[in-house]
Amino acid sequence: MPQPGPLSGITVVDLSRILAGPYATFLMAEMGARVIKVEPPPPGDDARAYGPYVNGVSTYFASINRGKESISLDLKSANDKAIFEKLLARADVVVENFRPGTMEKLGYGWEALHARYPRLIYAAASGFGHSGPFSGKPSYDMVVQGLGGIMSITGHPGLPPARIGMSIGDIGAGLYAAVAINAALAHRCMTGEATKVDIAMFDCQLALLENAVMRYTVLGEVPGPLGGRHPSIVPFEALETEDGWMIVAAGNDGLYLKLCEGLGRPDLAADQRYRTNDLRSQNRDSLRAELVKELRKRKTAENIALLEKAGVPCGPINNIEQALSHPQVAARNMLVTVADPAAGTLKLAGNPLKFSAFPDPPTRAPAPTLDRDREKILKELGL
Amino acid sequence: MPQPGPLSGITVVDLSRILAGPYATFLMAEMGARVIKVEPPPPGDDARAYGPYVNGVSTYFASINRGKESISLDLKSANDKAIFEKLLARADVVVENFRPGTMEKLGYGWEALHARYPRLIYAAASGFGHSGPFSGKPSYDMVVQGLGGIMSITGHPGLPPARIGMSIGDIGAGLYAAVAINAALAHRCMTGEATKVDIAMFDCQLALLENAVMRYTVLGEVPGPLGGRHPSIVPFEALETEDGWMIVAAGNDGLYLKLCEGLGRPDLAADQRYRTNDLRSQNRDSLRAELVKELRKRKTAENIALLEKAGVPCGPINNIEQALSHPQVAARNMLVTVADPAAGTLKLAGNPLKFSAFPDPPTRAPAPTLDRDREKILKELGL
Repeated sequence: MPQPGPLSGITVVDLSRILAGPYATFLMAEMGARVIKVEPPPPGDDARAYGPYVNGVSTYFASINRGKESISLDLKSANDKAIFEKLLARADVVVENFRPGTMEKLGYGWEALHARYPRLIYAAASGFGHSGPFSGKPSYDMVVQGLGGIMSITGHPGLPPARIGMSIGDIGAGLYAAVAINAALAHRCMTGEATKVDIAMFDCQLALLENAVMRYTVLGEVPGPLGGRHPSIVPFEALETEDGWMIVAAGNDGLYLKLCEGLGRPDLAADQRYRTNDLRSQNRDSLRAELVKELRKRKTAENIALLEKAGVPCGPINNIEQALSHPQVAARNMLVTVADPAAGTLKLAGNPLKFSAFPDPPTRAPAPTLDRDREKILKELGL
Repeated sequence: MPQPGPLSGITVVDLSRILAGPYATFLMAEMGARVIKVEPPPPGDDARAYGPYVNGVSTYFASINRGKESISLDLKSANDKAIFEKLLARADVVVENFRPGTMEKLGYGWEALHARYPRLIYAAASGFGHSGPFSGKPSYDMVVQGLGGIMSITGHPGLPPARIGMSIGDIGAGLYAAVAINAALAHRCMTGEATKVDIAMFDCQLALLENAVMRYTVLGEVPGPLGGRHPSIVPFEALETEDGWMIVAAGNDGLYLKLCEGLGRPDLAADQRYRTNDLRSQNRDSLRAELVKELRKRKTAENIALLEKAGVPCGPINNIEQALSHPQVAARNMLVTVADPAAGTLKLAGNPLKFSAFPDPPTRAPAPTLDRDREKILKELGL
C-alpha cells in the first residue's frame, strides 16, 4: 500500500526511465500516489545499472524508486499490450520520458489515449519537448546543462566550465513535471477534463535562469560566471576565513551596518563608498578586501558566532557529511530509512513536501525488484 | 483576468516576498490561478528594489510577479485586517514566506485560519521550516546554498567555492512549494480537506543533492567538486576543442563505441581499459587525454556536427545569449513579451509548463504597481 498523502487514491502508470520522469513520480509516490512502474523486459529501467551499489543493488535506483511497484511488459507484444491497456483503463496519469514519437509508434500517443481513456492525464518529459525543430532529438542532463546556459553563469571567470554538482537538467524537469501533473489532477477534479502535459528539459533550464535572462534581454549583458558571489547584491558571497571559507549574506543596507558593527569596523559603516548596495557593487573589490582582512582573523565557526550575534545572515560552506549532520536534518526527517531486502538498511534523502494532514514516517518502503508486483497486478486486473 | 489554465478558478492570497514564495505563486499564475499579492505599505515587496531596472521599474520584480494583482495592506491595522480576512474568506490558498511565528503573532497561524476558513490551504516557505531547533532562524539563498552541501559538489577541486549561478536555494523551494500546493488543491477537491504545507529551503537543498547523498550514506565518501564532469559516468563531461569547450555525453557502452567511431579512433573502442563504464571510470584520465587530443583538431561546431552524425549526445556550452537564441526557444515560446506601462516592452522567460488543453500565448500581463488593484478588490469584497 502506498503511504497516505494528498495524492492517496491516485494511480500513476509510469513508463519513465532513469531520472527526469522517475523523479516526478517519486514525488507523487511520496505524496501518496500508487505508482506502477511499467519496465521493459530485463534488465528493466537503465537506472538499475547505475552505482553506487550495495550487494548488487543500485542505491541510485533505490533512492528515486522507493515505494513504487514494478511490472515488466514488452509493449511490442500483443499479450503485454492487453495488460498495459487494462492498467491504463484504471489509471489517473500515465508518465513517459521517451523520445517524442515513441508513444505514437506504440499506438499510445496522446490523441489515441485521450480518445480511448478520456479521464487519463498524459505527462511527457523529453529533452526538447513535443514541438519545435529539435523535438525529435534525444538529450541528457549534461547536454542540456551545457545548452541551457546555466554552466555559463556557474564557476569562475577564466577557468574551465563547471557542471552543477547534481543533475539539474533531469531533476529540474522532474520538478516542473510534478508541478504540472498535480495541477492537471486538480483541474480534472474540478472540471472532469484531462490534459496532456509536455515538459522539455531544455525549457526548464531556461526557466531556471532567473535574473540572468533579464540581464541579457533588458541590459544587453551576457552574464558570465561569478565564482562565489551574487550578481547584484554586495556583500552576498563566499569569503575567506582563517581556516577556510564562509558565506556572508548582508542582503540590504541595514544588514550591512550590522555586519560592520559585528566585525568592529564602524569606519566601513561610515565609508561613503559602501553606503548603498549600488555603491557597494561599484566598489566591491575594495570592500571584499576589507571584509576578508577581518574574517581572516578568526576561524569560520568563530566568525559565524560573532556575526549571528550581530544579526547578520551567514553560515558555513558544508560538505555533504556536514550538511547531513545538521541538527535540522533529524528534526525534519530529511534522512529516511529504507529496509531493502537485498541491500539492507539504506539511508536516503527524505521528502521536503511536508503536509499537516499527513504523517512523514521515518521509514519508507523499498524500491521494487524488476517485475516484483506482476502477480498482484494481474490478479487485480482479473487476468 | 488571469490567463486560462488548469488552475483557473483558484484564488491565491499571496503574502510572500522576494523570491521563494513569489516563484511558487508565479507558476500558479502561469497556470491560470488568480494571485492577489498582499504587500506591506510602501515600498511593498522588497524585490521591487532589485535590479536590473528599466525606467525605474525592477525587471527582477516584473519577471516573477507578472499577471498578479496587488493590494497594499498593513496587517497590524484593524481596518486592513478586516479587508485581509474578507480576502481569505474567498481564497483557496494563502502563501507566506515569513520567518516562522510571524503569522501566529498577526493572529493568522494555521490553527486559527483552519478553524475559521476550513477550506483554505495554507502554504509556508521558510529557511528551516516550521519545526526543529533552527525553525526560528532566518535564511537567504546564499546561506542555504552553503549549508545544504550543493556548493561543496560544484566547481573545481582545490579552487574557491562556487555559487550555483541562479538562486537554487529560493527557486528550489518555490518549485517544491508549487508541487505541494497543487497536490493540496487536488486533495481538497477529492476529499474536501484542506492542509498546511510547510516547505523549508534547507530541506529542499538536501532533496536536490541526488546521488551525492548515497555516495555518503552508502559508500561513506564525502563527495567533492568535480569540475565539468559527472561523478560516475565516463565520458560525460566538458572537454576542450580547438576553439573552446563542448559537452560529450556518452552515457553507455554503445554510445562510447559510437564516439570512438565518430572520432575515427577504433583503437579506443577496442582498448580493454575502456571497455565498460566502470573501467572507463578507473581510467578516466588517460581516456580524457585521448579524447581531447582528437577534439582539439576541430572547432566545437565541427565536432558537434561530426559526433551528432555518429549518434553521440553532445552539444555546446552556451552562454545566455546563445541559449536564448536557440531555435527551440522561439518554437516553444520560451521568451514571452510583457508590455509594462512604465518599463515598456520586456522579454522574459516563458512558462515551461505546457498543457494541451490551454493556449500558451506569446504575451503576458505585466506585474502590478504597488496597490494597483485596491479599488477593484474592495469593490468585489463589497467594501
